[in-house]
Amino acid sequence: MDDSMKQIWDGLHEECGVFGAYNVNGEDIASLVYYGLFALQHRGQESCGIAVSENRDIRYYKDMGLVNEVFTPKNLDRVHGDIAIGHVRYSTAGSSVRSNAQPLVTKYVKGQLAIAHNGNLVNAVDLREELEKNGAIFQTTIDSEVIAYLVARERVGCGSVEEAVRRAMPFIAGAYSLLVMSPRKIIAARDPHGFKPLCIGQAGDTWIVASETCALDAVGARWIRDIEPGEIVVINEEGIRTYHKSGAPKAARCVFEYIYFARPDSVIDGVSVFNSRIMAGRILAQSHPVEADMVVGVPESGNDAAMGYALESGIPLGRAFVKNNYVGRTFIKPGQSAREKSVKIKLNVLKDAVKGKRIIMIDDSIVRGTTSANIVQMLKNAGATEVHVRISSPPFKFPCYFGTDIPTGDQLIANQYTIEAIGRMLGADSLGYLDVDRLNEMVDNLSYCDACFTGRYPVDPPTRDIRGDMEA
Amino acid sequence: MDDSMKQIWDGLHEECGVFGAYNVNGEDIASLVYYGLFALQHRGQESCGIAVSENRDIRYYKDMGLVNEVFTPKNLDRVHGDIAIGHVRYSTAGSSVRSNAQPLVTKYVKGQLAIAHNGNLVNAVDLREELEKNGAIFQTTIDSEVIAYLVARERVGCGSVEEAVRRAMPFIAGAYSLLVMSPRKIIAARDPHGFKPLCIGQAGDTWIVASETCALDAVGARWIRDIEPGEIVVINEEGIRTYHKSGAPKAARCVFEYIYFARPDSVIDGVSVFNSRIMAGRILAQSHPVEADMVVGVPESGNDAAMGYALESGIPLGRAFVKNNYVGRTFIKPGQSAREKSVKIKLNVLKDAVKGKRIIMIDDSIVRGTTSANIVQMLKNAGATEVHVRISSPPFKFPCYFGTDIPTGDQLIANQYTIEAIGRMLGADSLGYLDVDRLNEMVDNLSYCDACFTGRYPVDPPTRDIRGDMEA
Amino acid sequence: MDDSMKQIWDGLHEECGVFGAYNVNGEDIASLVYYGLFALQHRGQESCGIAVSENRDIRYYKDMGLVNEVFTPKNLDRVHGDIAIGHVRYSTAGSSVRSNAQPLVTKYVKGQLAIAHNGNLVNAVDLREELEKNGAIFQTTIDSEVIAYLVARERVGCGSVEEAVRRAMPFIAGAYSLLVMSPRKIIAARDPHGFKPLCIGQAGDTWIVASETCALDAVGARWIRDIEPGEIVVINEEGIRTYHKSGAPKAARCVFEYIYFARPDSVIDGVSVFNSRIMAGRILAQSHPVEADMVVGVPESGNDAAMGYALESGIPLGRAFVKNNYVGRTFIKPGQSAREKSVKIKLNVLKDAVKGKRIIMIDDSIVRGTTSANIVQMLKNAGATEVHVRISSPPFKFPCYFGTDIPTGDQLIANQYTIEAIGRMLGADSLGYLDVDRLNEMVDNLSYCDACFTGRYPVDPPTRDIRGDMEA
Amino acid sequence: MDDSMKQIWDGLHEECGVFGAYNVNGEDIASLVYYGLFALQHRGQESCGIAVSENRDIRYYKDMGLVNEVFTPKNLDRVHGDIAIGHVRYSTAGSSVRSNAQPLVTKYVKGQLAIAHNGNLVNAVDLREELEKNGAIFQTTIDSEVIAYLVARERVGCGSVEEAVRRAMPFIAGAYSLLVMSPRKIIAARDPHGFKPLCIGQAGDTWIVASETCALDAVGARWIRDIEPGEIVVINEEGIRTYHKSGAPKAARCVFEYIYFARPDSVIDGVSVFNSRIMAGRILAQSHPVEADMVVGVPESGNDAAMGYALESGIPLGRAFVKNNYVGRTFIKPGQSAREKSVKIKLNVLKDAVKGKRIIMIDDSIVRGTTSANIVQMLKNAGATEVHVRISSPPFKFPCYFGTDIPTGDQLIANQYTIEAIGRMLGADSLGYLDVDRLNEMVDNLSYCDACFTGRYPVDPPTRDIRGDMEA
Repeated sequence: MDDSMKQIWDGLHEECGVFGAYNVNGEDIASLVYYGLFALQHRGQESCGIAVSENRDIRYYKDMGLVNEVFTPKNLDRVHGDIAIGHVRYSTAGSSVRSNAQPLVTKYVKGQLAIAHNGNLVNAVDLREELEKNGAIFQTTIDSEVIAYLVARERVGCGSVEEAVRRAMPFIAGAYSLLVMSPRKIIAARDPHGFKPLCIGQAGDTWIVASETCALDAVGARWIRDIEPGEIVVINEEGIRTYHKSGAPKAARCVFEYIYFARPDSVIDGVSVFNSRIMAGRILAQSHPVEADMVVGVPESGNDAAMGYALESGIPLGRAFVKNNYVGRTFIKPGQSAREKSVKIKLNVLKDAVKGKRIIMIDDSIVRGTTSANIVQMLKNAGATEVHVRISSPPFKFPCYFGTDIPTGDQLIANQYTIEAIGRMLGADSLGYLDVDRLNEMVDNLSYCDACFTGRYPVDPPTRDIRGDMEA
Repeated sequence: MDDSMKQIWDGLHEECGVFGAYNVNGEDIASLVYYGLFALQHRGQESCGIAVSENRDIRYYKDMGLVNEVFTPKNLDRVHGDIAIGHVRYSTAGSSVRSNAQPLVTKYVKGQLAIAHNGNLVNAVDLREELEKNGAIFQTTIDSEVIAYLVARERVGCGSVEEAVRRAMPFIAGAYSLLVMSPRKIIAARDPHGFKPLCIGQAGDTWIVASETCALDAVGARWIRDIEPGEIVVINEEGIRTYHKSGAPKAARCVFEYIYFARPDSVIDGVSVFNSRIMAGRILAQSHPVEADMVVGVPESGNDAAMGYALESGIPLGRAFVKNNYVGRTFIKPGQSAREKSVKIKLNVLKDAVKGKRIIMIDDSIVRGTTSANIVQMLKNAGATEVHVRISSPPFKFPCYFGTDIPTGDQLIANQYTIEAIGRMLGADSLGYLDVDRLNEMVDNLSYCDACFTGRYPVDPPTRDIRGDMEA
Repeated sequence: MDDSMKQIWDGLHEECGVFGAYNVNGEDIASLVYYGLFALQHRGQESCGIAVSENRDIRYYKDMGLVNEVFTPKNLDRVHGDIAIGHVRYSTAGSSVRSNAQPLVTKYVKGQLAIAHNGNLVNAVDLREELEKNGAIFQTTIDSEVIAYLVARERVGCGSVEEAVRRAMPFIAGAYSLLVMSPRKIIAARDPHGFKPLCIGQAGDTWIVASETCALDAVGARWIRDIEPGEIVVINEEGIRTYHKSGAPKAARCVFEYIYFARPDSVIDGVSVFNSRIMAGRILAQSHPVEADMVVGVPESGNDAAMGYALESGIPLGRAFVKNNYVGRTFIKPGQSAREKSVKIKLNVLKDAVKGKRIIMIDDSIVRGTTSANIVQMLKNAGATEVHVRISSPPFKFPCYFGTDIPTGDQLIANQYTIEAIGRMLGADSLGYLDVDRLNEMVDNLSYCDACFTGRYPVDPPTRDIRGDMEA
Repeated sequence: MDDSMKQIWDGLHEECGVFGAYNVNGEDIASLVYYGLFALQHRGQESCGIAVSENRDIRYYKDMGLVNEVFTPKNLDRVHGDIAIGHVRYSTAGSSVRSNAQPLVTKYVKGQLAIAHNGNLVNAVDLREELEKNGAIFQTTIDSEVIAYLVARERVGCGSVEEAVRRAMPFIAGAYSLLVMSPRKIIAARDPHGFKPLCIGQAGDTWIVASETCALDAVGARWIRDIEPGEIVVINEEGIRTYHKSGAPKAARCVFEYIYFARPDSVIDGVSVFNSRIMAGRILAQSHPVEADMVVGVPESGNDAAMGYALESGIPLGRAFVKNNYVGRTFIKPGQSAREKSVKIKLNVLKDAVKGKRIIMIDDSIVRGTTSANIVQMLKNAGATEVHVRISSPPFKFPCYFGTDIPTGDQLIANQYTIEAIGRMLGADSLGYLDVDRLNEMVDNLSYCDACFTGRYPVDPPTRDIRGDMEA
């Protein structure tokens, strides 16, 4: 793949979280969705929204911002209903505009639809063009609008929204965990490869569907089961029901959900995210052992693998860093003159804990390498005699087209340098990555997608992309 | 027409203003559009927006609020371009949501379009249904979205946007003064009856199209001509050019623009709005003379007709009221307990000026009658010995389907009571309305629509409406 | 007085409005004060505040902004009480900071005090220095803080707040209409010259004290009487009572309140502001007659005098201008490039009304002359054959030290040029000012201060000023 | 002490952070102070402010909110100077008003002063009364205003601000780490007992004084030394200089700074906060050993002591909890109906990690006990077979009068129940507190204050308090 292609894709990643709820007794569950989205906030901090069905009429509120910024008491009071879906969205700067917030609510020939989804389609451009040729107009750059058109088109010739979703799915290629709400029910669907997680829970008389089990815990719901790859589930007054199932020959769960993206207290398709990170640390200790005085994690993403490395190696787990918890999404960095170059805004080292020690430093990944090099330097400046870097994932070498924000091409240090060279660039005394061959141990032999490490894409990558935002 | 029908229509009125500019030398004219919209603010205070074409790419910014609230220096800096259209929008509370702000910017098979319009279609519901049957989905409740679909549909089978607009127009019934911006040009169109105004101006190397001439004055442009009913004009690098013209047998200009809605310094289709109001006052003085000491206008809408009445009758023009200019769109009225019932927030009477006098009080219209009754009472309380009310328009009796916000049915006092009865209800010593037969004198014998007074609709009213907002 | 002295004083003007209310039945009157301040908004648009006594505890809320911006329903709900005072404040940019908002609420040896006042002290600097020598510290630059110290100091040695106010008054020189609220009563005081207005009203069981009678009207109160120059009034559960009176030999009411500052529906010390402006127009017509076709006012401040001129001269009153009512306090003017130089944001001319006419244009004052010259030019451009400018006040020649914002020295065109020269600079065919000798006719022979026209100051101007703002 | 006394004190705690900087080359250091305050954000999230001296004139900006909320780029640009002090403030709800934000900037007889301080005076009420008797008026309820008066009073009779501070200090009883900025220098003072930390650092040509060393690290400064109890330091163009020193016979450093309040990467008076927490965990393991499978900390305050317990006991350190990092200061909890009772907003349990295990759970303190009981229950619900609670501080039994927010009387569970009873109430299988006799080991035998555990107050508690807020 040439570079121009890569640049085209840069900025399209949509890591998101979805949450839906259906109360069979007609009680308002808008605040439940609020709490559910809040538990999924790590999946998207850019915008969020809730669509509700109240008296069989769909209404919504959405805006840029965190869940508790957008849903002030006043704004949350705008949405009430016994059926509701919500969404949190992350995207890179280019497409960070209000009109792209989800859920997308539309009116079509058979009534109203609200759509929220997580994942990236690989044929969205082709689908748009085909729809435009038939008169469609697009007001956003999100895949939800494409899906809405396809569902609306199929709905004309069939008897239900779930059937329309079933008929639309063969046209859609790529990753999607999808919630479609009509005024009377929720349809939840997961793409045939099961790239992104989606699970079902129950809290009393309320059925819940969510990106991660941590959101079930947050609202006091018990986990019922995961939605399977290729499965379409209908949630209505009769409860949950599989409408259709047609998985791919081989599932392709995103392994990066386990490595970094999901919350450690979630369990995806039967595998605990926390356990998989502990296991990653153990594997690292087996494959890349080294004599040292202390194992430390780079907070917070490296902490669990560090614990695994310590448990496996017997080297004590210590703490080397203090993180400033107030560095948020909107933090500004004024006056970056020469003087402020040395400002350590985010991380500080516990000098007494580090001085004179040989340290194994665990992080979940290296992208450009500059941050890692800074951290290694901070440890050395504080008196560490050796710093051995261990990374709880294999080296990134290929872009992801399914919704994970991995830089492309030249921005990936592992795409240009050998591991030895990278180690030297970091200033580390040694460097070890998780072997790509042992990822299966980490996820308990589930079938997964490791294309960002291997380039073996379960679905063909897109051939082109021409999306852009119109909102200034 | 039955009452349920009337209620359906209530809340659909969209009184708006449009402004477009094209600079032939490629200079940025976003701030010019800002000033133009500001001069049209009286046509819509609810939301506003500007869409620009910069480097042949359309971008936009729009939000709820007044022009200078939405376009802070920071937000105005988001839109730059040498082609631009803008919009100010008013609507009643029901549809006051952000997603309905204009211009509407879409991507369709042949590229990008931005649409801004003023006026109401009477067959929007039918058009929506037909489009939905062919797979269209709707995200807003504004007519612009219907027009965008129609233009996109026609564009597939023809060679230019202007031709697509020409082909779409026969499908559209009702009132519209329309701006369509493609990345390279602006198409301006006025419906065949010419309900709403639309004029062309020039400021140096910039062509301008605007709802009213006051916006041309505001940006230092000179008036070139009005766009004629049924005319489609193309504005591009070669200047302005009539692409097509197909007016109705008889124009039907909204006479209420002259009576109330337009700014007095505007000239619409050759007739000065100020002069038409002076004339209305003169006609009133001829038709409904009365002996009195002073003629006063109810500020501000009655002031010009009051001047005309004074000039014609020879009775001195005086001043009876002081208006609090700080009563704005967002004014709240806390604590309306018994004590505050007597609060006079908006108007106060000049007691010394009124005491012992026989007064002719001019206003532009009476809707429910309660405000007028209060004002008459204020004058009497201040010592006026007689109060003769004169209204510079005929009695409202019929709803408007073309974009003017006139209450319907029972809310219209003139629909239920005789003029004598209304006069008694106001507490007035006499009451006179402008004779509907003399409206032609007011607008210099232009052809106009007076359906709200006569029920003679130039275009058949809609048969039904099912629109509603989805945004909470 | 040299120029550096004048510059020192520039920026200290505090044109303000005060409003107080006392309900003898213990009912909440916070919203009444809100409405009262709203009616006084023309006296100050920069900041506002309300202090209440609830259960004998004083609390307050104040901020930068208009009354209905600061007192949102939520913020107004923060203040409840049966005794309350409020304040609106204007000041020039230099001291536009939040900490200077009023009322000023303090705790001192005998309890709590809230102070709101209108007017400028001329010896504030000396008083501050004296107080600082005795250990006082100052947190604001407003005179209220000086007054609070003086009252607190006197209160130690006497038995009541009203007595402390009486003892403090001899130390204070200059203009002040003052409200002092203790937890149990309101003391209202007017300086011995009566520079600024202050009146008493009653609405049922609520006593009211306000800067202008228009605020009494606004809350449905009837006017009882004006507080006299040098009078101290106590308002408590027994009603209103004069505590002390010691006026100057000769009152010195600010004549500019009548000319421009007060609302026309107010009556100050028995003279109607509206009538005084009509009279100013009549005097102008007598002193500076000219043949013409139409008399017009520059909106809105010139309108009443224009009516007076028309009545006296018999020349018809017309309308030449339309003002854009949306130009507010916060209006921004982006992109003032060459193209936008011609933008007419605030005023437009009614070309048809002006064309071919000889016009008498009335305004209330000329400061720098640039605006007036622009307006004359607009009339000429629109086809006026002659423009005769008449000003309803004498030429400004001297700074005001008592609270009215009049530019100083070189900024005053009348300080540098003859009337003939000014007329030429304006492009006017003739120019006439109100004769300073006839001001007494305008205010019905009340005793007034005309120092800004004559330089005859009723109180010696300050010798120096060192105030500055600390808030950034 | 009776209960009414305790209630009086509730809500007066002011845990704060201070940061000052002086650049000897006249360079702007406002953004440095911004970063310094940001590193001290954990010491106060309610309000913050920066005062600067620019061209020997003091200006300031302060407001309610976090550092990066208050100091937007626009607001930070309002303050520039080569001398600056800043403040972050926490206080309980009662006194959470804008006027209490610091620094307090005043003008007094000798010029301007800005004051920022951390700590509570115990004789503030008496000092206020005394000052009021001499004519002082108070506009806030913060101790800074009392200090400003005292310094201003002393400054009259002496030659410098530092001498005035020295003379004022004997009047002030209690805890204070104080920064006083005149237009030309900063005076830093620490109370004779050294309750609150205060240290000096240097970054190139900039001298820094800060509450904690973590703020020195944040701006790339090196630690020079701590200011000693009772020491007054002057920072001016000549560098830093001890002006006076008069410590108490025995220092009384707040031990709770080590236990909980300070950041772990800070070093206070030579003792690492991190090390002291590790040591607390080790002591707990020695004094309260128990057989178990895993040691876990309650995040985040219990994590370091948990590590110490694990190191000492040899029981593996594990992880049981995931914290939602988006729960911020402003988080709202809508709809707390029965259904939402079970919502776990802040913490979730790693069920797989906990199931079937005997767990030692470490936290830094127990206040009311309800939160701890909930967490124990969460562990049991997740399948923990035993839960042994260990607390890294002794039981709270006495209120703190020196600035630490510890509830009083009945709210303290340890004041009412035996340790065994508390353990039962928590549902724990055992409960152990840090022995008060071993606190000295934790802080390396520094002299400290443990009054909240022992009731032995180094300074007599206040006899009364009558403070209240006036701002609504």
